[in-house]
Amino acid sequence: MTGLKDRIFDALDQRKDEMIAIRRHLHEYPELSFHETKTSQYIRDFYEGKDCKVVANVGTGYGITIDIQGGRPGKSLAIRADFDALPIEEASGVPFTSKNPGVMHACGHDGHTAYMLILADTLIQFKEELPGMVRIIHQPAEEVPPGGSKDMIEGGCLEGIDNVLGIHVMSTMDVGKVYYHKGGIHTGRATFKLTITGKGGHGSAPQDANDAIVAGAQFVTAAQTIVSRRISPFDAVTVTIGSFDGKGSANVIKESVTLEGDVRMMDEANRPVVEAQFKQILEGISQAFGVTYDLEYGNDYPVCMNDEKLTEKVIHAIESAGIPEVSGVEDVGPQTASEDFAYYALERPSCFIWVGAHEPGTPVYPHHNPKFTIDEGCLIISAKAMASAVLAYLEEE
Amino acid sequence: MTGLKDRIFDALDQRKDEMIAIRRHLHEYPELSFHETKTSQYIRDFYEGKDCKVVANVGTGYGITIDIQGGRPGKSLAIRADFDALPIEEASGVPFTSKNPGVMHACGHDGHTAYMLILADTLIQFKEELPGMVRIIHQPAEEVPPGGSKDMIEGGCLEGIDNVLGIHVMSTMDVGKVYYHKGGIHTGRATFKLTITGKGGHGSAPQDANDAIVAGAQFVTAAQTIVSRRISPFDAVTVTIGSFDGKGSANVIKESVTLEGDVRMMDEANRPVVEAQFKQILEGISQAFGVTYDLEYGNDYPVCMNDEKLTEKVIHAIESAGIPEVSGVEDVGPQTASEDFAYYALERPSCFIWVGAHEPGTPVYPHHNPKFTIDEGCLIISAKAMASAVLAYLEEE
Amino acid sequence: MTGLKDRIFDALDQRKDEMIAIRRHLHEYPELSFHETKTSQYIRDFYEGKDCKVVANVGTGYGITIDIQGGRPGKSLAIRADFDALPIEEASGVPFTSKNPGVMHACGHDGHTAYMLILADTLIQFKEELPGMVRIIHQPAEEVPPGGSKDMIEGGCLEGIDNVLGIHVMSTMDVGKVYYHKGGIHTGRATFKLTITGKGGHGSAPQDANDAIVAGAQFVTAAQTIVSRRISPFDAVTVTIGSFDGKGSANVIKESVTLEGDVRMMDEANRPVVEAQFKQILEGISQAFGVTYDLEYGNDYPVCMNDEKLTEKVIHAIESAGIPEVSGVEDVGPQTASEDFAYYALERPSCFIWVGAHEPGTPVYPHHNPKFTIDEGCLIISAKAMASAVLAYLEEE
Amino acid sequence: MTGLKDRIFDALDQRKDEMIAIRRHLHEYPELSFHETKTSQYIRDFYEGKDCKVVANVGTGYGITIDIQGGRPGKSLAIRADFDALPIEEASGVPFTSKNPGVMHACGHDGHTAYMLILADTLIQFKEELPGMVRIIHQPAEEVPPGGSKDMIEGGCLEGIDNVLGIHVMSTMDVGKVYYHKGGIHTGRATFKLTITGKGGHGSAPQDANDAIVAGAQFVTAAQTIVSRRISPFDAVTVTIGSFDGKGSANVIKESVTLEGDVRMMDEANRPVVEAQFKQILEGISQAFGVTYDLEYGNDYPVCMNDEKLTEKVIHAIESAGIPEVSGVEDVGPQTASEDFAYYALERPSCFIWVGAHEPGTPVYPHHNPKFTIDEGCLIISAKAMASAVLAYLEEE
Repeated sequence: MTGLKDRIFDALDQRKDEMIAIRRHLHEYPELSFHETKTSQYIRDFYEGKDCKVVANVGTGYGITIDIQGGRPGKSLAIRADFDALPIEEASGVPFTSKNPGVMHACGHDGHTAYMLILADTLIQFKEELPGMVRIIHQPAEEVPPGGSKDMIEGGCLEGIDNVLGIHVMSTMDVGKVYYHKGGIHTGRATFKLTITGKGGHGSAPQDANDAIVAGAQFVTAAQTIVSRRISPFDAVTVTIGSFDGKGSANVIKESVTLEGDVRMMDEANRPVVEAQFKQILEGISQAFGVTYDLEYGNDYPVCMNDEKLTEKVIHAIESAGIPEVSGVEDVGPQTASEDFAYYALERPSCFIWVGAHEPGTPVYPHHNPKFTIDEGCLIISAKAMASAVLAYLEEE
Repeated sequence: MTGLKDRIFDALDQRKDEMIAIRRHLHEYPELSFHETKTSQYIRDFYEGKDCKVVANVGTGYGITIDIQGGRPGKSLAIRADFDALPIEEASGVPFTSKNPGVMHACGHDGHTAYMLILADTLIQFKEELPGMVRIIHQPAEEVPPGGSKDMIEGGCLEGIDNVLGIHVMSTMDVGKVYYHKGGIHTGRATFKLTITGKGGHGSAPQDANDAIVAGAQFVTAAQTIVSRRISPFDAVTVTIGSFDGKGSANVIKESVTLEGDVRMMDEANRPVVEAQFKQILEGISQAFGVTYDLEYGNDYPVCMNDEKLTEKVIHAIESAGIPEVSGVEDVGPQTASEDFAYYALERPSCFIWVGAHEPGTPVYPHHNPKFTIDEGCLIISAKAMASAVLAYLEEE
Repeated sequence: MTGLKDRIFDALDQRKDEMIAIRRHLHEYPELSFHETKTSQYIRDFYEGKDCKVVANVGTGYGITIDIQGGRPGKSLAIRADFDALPIEEASGVPFTSKNPGVMHACGHDGHTAYMLILADTLIQFKEELPGMVRIIHQPAEEVPPGGSKDMIEGGCLEGIDNVLGIHVMSTMDVGKVYYHKGGIHTGRATFKLTITGKGGHGSAPQDANDAIVAGAQFVTAAQTIVSRRISPFDAVTVTIGSFDGKGSANVIKESVTLEGDVRMMDEANRPVVEAQFKQILEGISQAFGVTYDLEYGNDYPVCMNDEKLTEKVIHAIESAGIPEVSGVEDVGPQTASEDFAYYALERPSCFIWVGAHEPGTPVYPHHNPKFTIDEGCLIISAKAMASAVLAYLEEE
Repeated sequence: MTGLKDRIFDALDQRKDEMIAIRRHLHEYPELSFHETKTSQYIRDFYEGKDCKVVANVGTGYGITIDIQGGRPGKSLAIRADFDALPIEEASGVPFTSKNPGVMHACGHDGHTAYMLILADTLIQFKEELPGMVRIIHQPAEEVPPGGSKDMIEGGCLEGIDNVLGIHVMSTMDVGKVYYHKGGIHTGRATFKLTITGKGGHGSAPQDANDAIVAGAQFVTAAQTIVSRRISPFDAVTVTIGSFDGKGSANVIKESVTLEGDVRMMDEANRPVVEAQFKQILEGISQAFGVTYDLEYGNDYPVCMNDEKLTEKVIHAIESAGIPEVSGVEDVGPQTASEDFAYYALERPSCFIWVGAHEPGTPVYPHHNPKFTIDEGCLIISAKAMASAVLAYLEEE
């Protein structure tokens, strides 16, 4: 069977350039979460005529599953790649920069889809030699709650599946390494949208108006105390106001501002504490400044848990696969980001790992930064690491 | 000569509906400062074929002057009406609401132009009976510094002119009354635009980013102390941040925000104090939060001064004209708003008065509020008050 | 009668050194408002054996009145000097610096009492030549509401009195000049004391405590918006938090803090607006931070009004008296400080003027500053200016 | 040898009331760190005439060591109890409440000393049966950096010692249980004292002064962002401003305020980050408000580390000792508080454990709270737990 792994590695090596070409194409045409019409069509076109079962529009959106049936009975494993992009104006300077103004693949999902398509095609090619079944989950809308995974699960994407694996490429981790952690790996999240309304008026007569920008600014400032004073220093919580939409005119007192942001926690016990404090501060600031507010506060992604045993198997498989591009496999600890992969992990024992994508010696731009980029060497590594895990999993007694 | 005044009043009375129709038309098609192409064309079309001298594009913009030459020698008086609108989404609910999304006549300039056109036409009709000359100044771009008046003055609009008069209709003052003040009547102003730049990043890893919204919010809060702690309570100063453009994504730490606003003062001595404090606070907050900034801070409109003697003459003329719609003429004190009429007043002894436009018993929406509206009864009052002042001025020995 | 004025001036000139010695003695032994036991005894001792009527303990405190009955009938005029000091640690560096730690004559009341004692003694000497009656009001407790004047009035100090005059020496105005204003001259005031209570705890576990210093700091910051955003820029209002008592230990989260401060306004119409906004902000901030509060908010000194006609007479008397040390008499406009002289002015037409006490070329330290000092040249000027006003007033038909 | 343990337990049981009496006596007479004259005398008096070596004034302060020499050779173990109190006004309501105003045993050190005295006396009684040597460290000044332990170590208290043990009673943990953690158990700390100086003045003329309370409040608010935005959510850091000394007068703008506080971190890598951010924010706020500052920022207690192997031995000894009052031994994770026990742990492999002192069903008041109290059942548990650890340690081969 080692023979099979090597032949798959060879097949992947021969299509490295194609992986990169696919990734660059997707990078040029990013689409926002829940609006991935062309990207999903592109994926379906890729599988056209291939020997696999394609189900499109799994759930209510653009999700696609591909079933690759092995030559003999066995376990059923789902492997997932997401494909949506972000509302960010790209400033990376790459030649294949986004052609969709204000939209950017600033989280690497273009890379996920690119390696997964080539890996899937390769698995189809060798499927008669595999036991069990592999289901590719091409998932939309990872970035925006409630996330595409929940919808695809409700649409049946885990039916008949025993376990789920996933990979994220990381611009903040060195290329050439694979990273993992057992237990809690990604934060749970809540997302909020908040409109504060005062009274507009002429900038020179504040006493006749009620300045929503002043009230909003004090709210942002007061909200810092949730993390600084209301949460144990040993607990991981963030409260970010990522959007303060108060665009107006220099000489007009702003009637209302709209704030959006999110909350992360690594322990579900903090979830209600942060929500209560957030609402208490908002209520109090609104009263202090005599403004009204309209709040949508939604708890979305749960804390994402890696199954201990499955993770050990996956890591063992990758470590022992002898992938030449991989120089190390490391426990990197939990990550603050949230992932709707958490919903799969609530349903099935799952494992999610990270593949380094930072070229040493270059500046680090974190995910969601307008200058985000990846070292494309991460694509072949992702493909081989996932292939190793799939093979070891399916062959296991 | 009282005969002439009465005949002019009669002529104005017969065209009241036309004034209102013009005002409503302009209200439906508001145009932003420096972009008043259709409004200026509309004004020029109005004078087409009339017996007066029309000069378009006075200065570098859309300003127009109309010279009405009297039948015998005398003084030369300019009377001014402005015609630009504001970047506000109308919410007044009037049937003739703005058809240009995001643009609104929320300061009454539509009314100024409407009464002035009919008044001008009436003066043309009776011009042989008038001594001297009346120049109508149809001025664009009052709302945006450096203001249209400065440009028109540089274009020669005051050449040969002895004095200047102007009127503003006021939604905050009762209709049926005319208001005045001697000396300083409108604040001087500075306008600023400010971009604060931190470092973007993922909302869950603030330590790898630098949150521009947090820094911007603290700046807004700290800037309140300019007025509360750095200016004598006896001095009139405002610092308004009218725009906080920090629109982004809920889960992305914002890299930069752009703030715009203005400063008003009734005493030019406060101008450098506010500017120095503003810059000191900005520099300090930027240092505290490790962000950079880019500031444009421009002093624009000077404090607007009403000439004492001219104002007394104008008020005497209006009080003694027996305008049936006017129930009182009152000293209303200085106003916090700025007016680029101040530039005319720097060049020639001038007088600027206010005409009430608030219907008693209805809610008061200040100028620049999305629900701003005027009681159209102010139009005929403006026309007759200005006519009275013009006649008394020209006939004076 | 000019002869009398000149003889009084001569008598005052001969006691200039004594005035200074008295002022320095009082400066060394300042006493806090409502605790002026030794100062009042000193004053009573001064009048011991003199030909005047001394009434001590007028009202419930340490107030003293001295009646100097003229030789013939006439009007009755009260002239007032206050004698309390402030809870400030002196840092002026004068050789006769305060011997009472934490207490300081940082407002010039030592000077008021010094000139008044010598002036009173001089008037006693010449009393047979005067018509009417002069009552010296030696008043305690000007600095602390409700102020000593109210209590003395209730104790009868204005019975039989037609008008009241007062002087304040000013470290911020040039010595050699006398200053006045008609109408509103001193602000009205409210004073507040506020305890904010959270929950104490160990500094390393904020989630188990509730930090009163953080809540108090946010209140101070939010309260700046009362003046910056809620009051017309044409109205004079201040909100000062003069005391933030949150002394504790570095490693203990503070359970409660106590804030004290005052509010000033030049228009009584702003009084309820500020009070309502203050309470609204406090309520809102308390709710936002989950703390409780205990507030004492007391409106005290009214706006102090100078009677127009009386002020004109007083100023005319001083201008025409030919006081050699006086180089000018100027309208200085209203002052932001409050004065419990306002209570006399509510009861009788009154006039309160200022005498410059700043030596040109030296740094200006405002009243209530630890480095406050006066140019003692102001003492003889105060005595002669008041003597001139008294003589002119009494001699008037 | 179990026989010895049982006899020691019996001896301790018979002196339970004495332990409580000692604790209550110490509770009534608390003394501040570095001023524990009477407490140290009390301890020395206790050992008067007993068969042990007493060394007083170890280091430069009030530290005492007691050497109890066993009957045969062996290892040397130090066990430590601290005895200083806190500057807190007691509000616990216990009958033996503090008789020293403003000083309180609000951290349980009275209990530490009480159990340790009785345990020491008991060990003296049985010393011939013990191998090796036990040194009791009665340590002052745990609460105030640099802490008494550092000074006692420099004074030689660890000379000849192999390992160190310590106990803290905990009002936040249930009585009947013993708690431990391996590795980092107490945070490292920095302490700061900060004076912000503006310019004093009259409350009604802020433009002539510079309000130190306003600047201080903005600093407190801005400093919240160190934890909320500048530290990884996975790292444990607190920044507490425990003292804001800005006591002044209601109507005087405050010239300066003094803030004190501390910083805690569980990872020494955060130490320089917090210090740099703290100083950057202070510098920036000072510049923004035009104030000056004087800062003492001292890094003191290091992160306190429990030696893994020694901790395992101690816990095993306690678990297997069959202490009837102990219902459980639990890993409670790291604690946010700092402990100058950390200095012993830097010098020798050490172990520090916690003994529950909260009576279930009663309100929890954290350490340093004015209502802090302990269930005195913790005393006998501390004595027996420490006795068990000492015996097992000494008897070990």
